[in-house]
Amino acid sequence: MTIRYLTGITPSGTPHLGNYAGAIRPAVRAQSATDVDNFYFLADLHSLIKAQNPEQTHTSTLEIAASWLACGLDPAKVTFYRQSDIPEIPQLSWLLTCVTGKGLLNRAHAYKAAVDKNTASGSEPDDGVTAGLFMYPVLMAADIMLFQAHRVPVGRDQIQHVEMARDMAASFNHLYGNGQELLVPPEAVIDENVATLPGLDGRKMSKSYHNTIPLFVPREQLRKLIQGITTDSRAPGQAKDTEGSALFQLYQAFASDAETAAMRQAFADGIGWGDAKQQLFERVEQEIAPLRERYNALMADPAAIEHILQQGAERARAIAVPYLAELRHAVGLRKLTHSHSADHAPAPEHPAAEEPPQIKQYRESDGQFYFKLTSAKGQLLLQSKAYATGREAGDAVKALKTQGAAALSALATQLEPHSDDDTLAQALHQLVQSHADKKG
Amino acid sequence: MTIRYLTGITPSGTPHLGNYAGAIRPAVRAQSATDVDNFYFLADLHSLIKAQNPEQTHTSTLEIAASWLACGLDPAKVTFYRQSDIPEIPQLSWLLTCVTGKGLLNRAHAYKAAVDKNTASGSEPDDGVTAGLFMYPVLMAADIMLFQAHRVPVGRDQIQHVEMARDMAASFNHLYGNGQELLVPPEAVIDENVATLPGLDGRKMSKSYHNTIPLFVPREQLRKLIQGITTDSRAPGQAKDTEGSALFQLYQAFASDAETAAMRQAFADGIGWGDAKQQLFERVEQEIAPLRERYNALMADPAAIEHILQQGAERARAIAVPYLAELRHAVGLRKLTHSHSADHAPAPEHPAAEEPPQIKQYRESDGQFYFKLTSAKGQLLLQSKAYATGREAGDAVKALKTQGAAALSALATQLEPHSDDDTLAQALHQLVQSHADKKG
Repeated sequence: MTIRYLTGITPSGTPHLGNYAGAIRPAVRAQSATDVDNFYFLADLHSLIKAQNPEQTHTSTLEIAASWLACGLDPAKVTFYRQSDIPEIPQLSWLLTCVTGKGLLNRAHAYKAAVDKNTASGSEPDDGVTAGLFMYPVLMAADIMLFQAHRVPVGRDQIQHVEMARDMAASFNHLYGNGQELLVPPEAVIDENVATLPGLDGRKMSKSYHNTIPLFVPREQLRKLIQGITTDSRAPGQAKDTEGSALFQLYQAFASDAETAAMRQAFADGIGWGDAKQQLFERVEQEIAPLRERYNALMADPAAIEHILQQGAERARAIAVPYLAELRHAVGLRKLTHSHSADHAPAPEHPAAEEPPQIKQYRESDGQFYFKLTSAKGQLLLQSKAYATGREAGDAVKALKTQGAAALSALATQLEPHSDDDTLAQALHQLVQSHADKKG
Repeated sequence: MTIRYLTGITPSGTPHLGNYAGAIRPAVRAQSATDVDNFYFLADLHSLIKAQNPEQTHTSTLEIAASWLACGLDPAKVTFYRQSDIPEIPQLSWLLTCVTGKGLLNRAHAYKAAVDKNTASGSEPDDGVTAGLFMYPVLMAADIMLFQAHRVPVGRDQIQHVEMARDMAASFNHLYGNGQELLVPPEAVIDENVATLPGLDGRKMSKSYHNTIPLFVPREQLRKLIQGITTDSRAPGQAKDTEGSALFQLYQAFASDAETAAMRQAFADGIGWGDAKQQLFERVEQEIAPLRERYNALMADPAAIEHILQQGAERARAIAVPYLAELRHAVGLRKLTHSHSADHAPAPEHPAAEEPPQIKQYRESDGQFYFKLTSAKGQLLLQSKAYATGREAGDAVKALKTQGAAALSALATQLEPHSDDDTLAQALHQLVQSHADKKG
């Protein structure tokens, strides 16, 4: 089974080397793994909670998108989109809001921290706290569950929010699922090995410490910044400690094992700090220079980035639209023609509306196996590509019969292009219901 | 100036005679007023806060829509739509959430009532309170302000929510408006003369008292219900009091002044209760019978109602889509190609993106006055119909230059059909900005 990972990227400010080594580079390296489906999105709706400067929101979104693409995030391998391009997210967010206890949100760390701070300073508990901060966990749950993401890589401070999404899934499934798992409870994944880089002053590189090395500064500025890294006062010729040396840790984050070993030896041999800094600069520059070139090219062509994000949104919505239609149906937000009550059956001129759709598995003269889904009126809704064995085709049919539209994304590569409208979502919903009825 | 009124109808249960006389009939009578633009919507997203029975949500929506249409609500005269068909509502709701202080929501009556009830019973304050109840005022504000509604007819218990919408508008305009009124603060309108009918037992007719007469029960059931109205024990021939008589009040709600005067006389003359009830039944039946017939026909054809709601949603979204695009732009949720920063100007192949659009006023050979809006590339975006005077055309142009997309709905009857996409919204936004620049 393909595991879907989902990661939100908050578009705030320009990324620095710490973001690169800790988040961007590992993501780019992981994007080619098999059996993994990666979703990355620019969390611009979240950024509105704090950033209320429109120009900055806009510029940050551009810079962060350009940075990730420049570093090699491949929109052909991952689904890369902008949160605000997916209108289904705030829609699902409201459905989740209605099944979330307010008490649950009262206990969110980020909200409680704001209240504690107010209380400590003698202010009203909710002073300066926006409803956005309070509702953040619900929007985040919608981000995750709209795409049925299985795993959410997060820092420790975000584990609780993923747990809250699980609570919301449980409430929703209990209220509306009729035994089906309509929403997939996500799991938090903590990467204990996230590289954190030291900043110019030796503390963790962080915007709040003003000790960062921005990722894409010009070459000469990068050199100057690296020359400003704090070191001890040992003279050239004196042996240097690698332990606790920000310079050494930064070098290690960019160098191969052999290069690192050589630098360790140079430290022991008493390399001068100026030389060591020059080597660090050259090593970082070697890796960053081609990325910087791509970054500058991308920043000069925002239309190209916009196009990539639009394509990403299209792929994301191919999943979100039919799935939200299924969830809306489950809570009772239905077209009036979808009556389930005998009293108000559709008028005779719409007799096919409630007929179940048909899913058929068959073998072609090419010897390969296929399936197709047709509406009661005979309209082709889904057509599979070829399967080598009947069993594989059968497994796919079974997934559609039991999971409905939720199975679509996992099957995407085995399906011919299809429209992702309500008709398909409802047909799959009916398919699941009729399958459940037959079993029941 | 046309004043826009907006009214939400919660789809819960079947309407009764009290709903008819107090809400539906006055709305239908008011729908032909000039200089008034009425919006009515089925508040199904709100209904999810309480009603977590999908079949009931679905059936109630159908019944309420059929009831209002059967009673004469004319989709040609008013904009009648279903809240959940407007994805821009939850999107605006998030933008508002980010500018709303949590403290404001803490003070909402409905939420406070739930907390007080918990406190009184010794439970945790937020016990059983959903985030939906807590966030209700924000969704309501989005309902109203997405359509720039000026007035919201409400009961006294809802005045506070309209005030909250005004607070949100003020915060939003302060943060993002640059002196412009991006969001229109709505006004609550209290109708002191709302007819409240007595129920079968003489108390106010209300579902919670189980004393209602449903609007569309079959004729014979209506007769039986009316026969069950509580009266005193005076015999035929004895004079009856009209004061405090539920029967008389119900009669008055359906009768003309002359008929009412005649009934008053009959009471004084000692009409028997049985006869009086028969007269009430006949008078109600006379008014309701044709509506009931239409209701039954509509309930037998849900597809026709669905079609009406879809058309209403289309009209509503013709306003909502470009307006939300403008609001998104204001908060910084922009296409990356809409750069306002010289550093990141669009690439040369998109030179026209930032050119201001042109609005031109002109006189045709028919002697009448017109205007049109064209993009920098010369694409026609808006074309007016004929104005008798240049001054009227000029006023319309000025409204577009100062209010942007917000002026569209007021001008709707004077515009040829146009697409309501981002392009138009952004062109109008640019127009407003360039107008403001020239003035500044």
